[in-house]
Amino acid sequence: MGTKSRTKCFYALFFLLVGFQDSVQGRLLLINKPDPKDPAASARWLVSQNSWGVLNTISSDLGGAPFGNVVSFSDGLPGEGSGIPYFYLTTLDPTAKNALQDQRSSFTISEYPLGTCGKKDPENPSCAKITLTGKLKVLKENSKEAEIAKSALFAKHPEMRGWPKGHNFQFFKLDIEDIFLINWFGGPKPLTVDQYLHYKV
Amino acid sequence: MGTKSRTKCFYALFFLLVGFQDSVQGRLLLINKPDPKDPAASARWLVSQNSWGVLNTISSDLGGAPFGNVVSFSDGLPGEGSGIPYFYLTTLDPTAKNALQDQRSSFTISEYPLGTCGKKDPENPSCAKITLTGKLKVLKENSKEAEIAKSALFAKHPEMRGWPKGHNFQFFKLDIEDIFLINWFGGPKPLTVDQYLHYKV
Repeated sequence: MGTKSRTKCFYALFFLLVGFQDSVQGRLLLINKPDPKDPAASARWLVSQNSWGVLNTISSDLGGAPFGNVVSFSDGLPGEGSGIPYFYLTTLDPTAKNALQDQRSSFTISEYPLGTCGKKDPENPSCAKITLTGKLKVLKENSKEAEIAKSALFAKHPEMRGWPKGHNFQFFKLDIEDIFLINWFGGPKPLTVDQYLHYKV
Repeated sequence: MGTKSRTKCFYALFFLLVGFQDSVQGRLLLINKPDPKDPAASARWLVSQNSWGVLNTISSDLGGAPFGNVVSFSDGLPGEGSGIPYFYLTTLDPTAKNALQDQRSSFTISEYPLGTCGKKDPENPSCAKITLTGKLKVLKENSKEAEIAKSALFAKHPEMRGWPKGHNFQFFKLDIEDIFLINWFGGPKPLTVDQYLHYKV
């Protein structure tokens, strides 16, 4: 067994062990679903209540194709969301690697997995969905914002604390530039980044 | 009330009514989760058992950013999946509009909403995720493949039958060129499009 195989084996065992811990916290619907007529409230609720989404980057390996990847995220401590999605990513994975080459990205979340869409189809406009578009940025190690990201992520995803150090996970954030929100009929709701970020929950 | 408002109002009522029907069918886990050592089986299982995912296109409106959108899909009649994801999209929405300008796209699905990841975090590699990259193509109206797509989609998403005719929904498919599958530790699983498409369920 070579060093590489041993390392892989160690990580597999490690992940198996940490995999049995409780993983996603704070998914209780502490706040009721807001009135869809309030786009800022809807958007912040969707982001704070979800634990995962699809993070999209541009893949140079795949001819510039938009590459979506399932990732966990958190926008803050439970009940103290900031609206900014933070991620814990490794460059062993294409998403972080792509972002370090080209920061253009988007993050997409659905209401469907929260279970609050009732019997509506996931594509039905009244089952909310949001796409935050902007720049995916790595946070400077030990910076104030990296500490915020760490608290936010580890509170919602306790399993992350035990993820292998050798994988060089780093904290990232999405610097939001545009918001696409569908939470009812009649097309996307007008919502500026400012209205979204400064909404008081 | 202008014609436009009346039309919007009609659609709103229409959607409200159809919204109360049963929406997503065939989500029962008819087939057990395959052994992660069999990438083709894992991939086909993930695609056949899920009802929605994030479809990613290149947005010219947003400076070429990768734009992800929550959409419903189906790869075939229940128990007869083909592995090819079919969609029912309208150009009132950016995704179909983007694809008609630039077909490069990807479709991302997570195992997490199926409920088979237990207490594992959605980003844990043993909670499977797949990204199918390729070209998003509109199907010619009344073509044989458009009929296949219609049967596949309407069987899984009965609500779609009642979606407003005036929205010009069209059938699309993803022509798969690359597969990124994570279903265990040790990085993405090697899986060719041929192995995936010709896997016998």
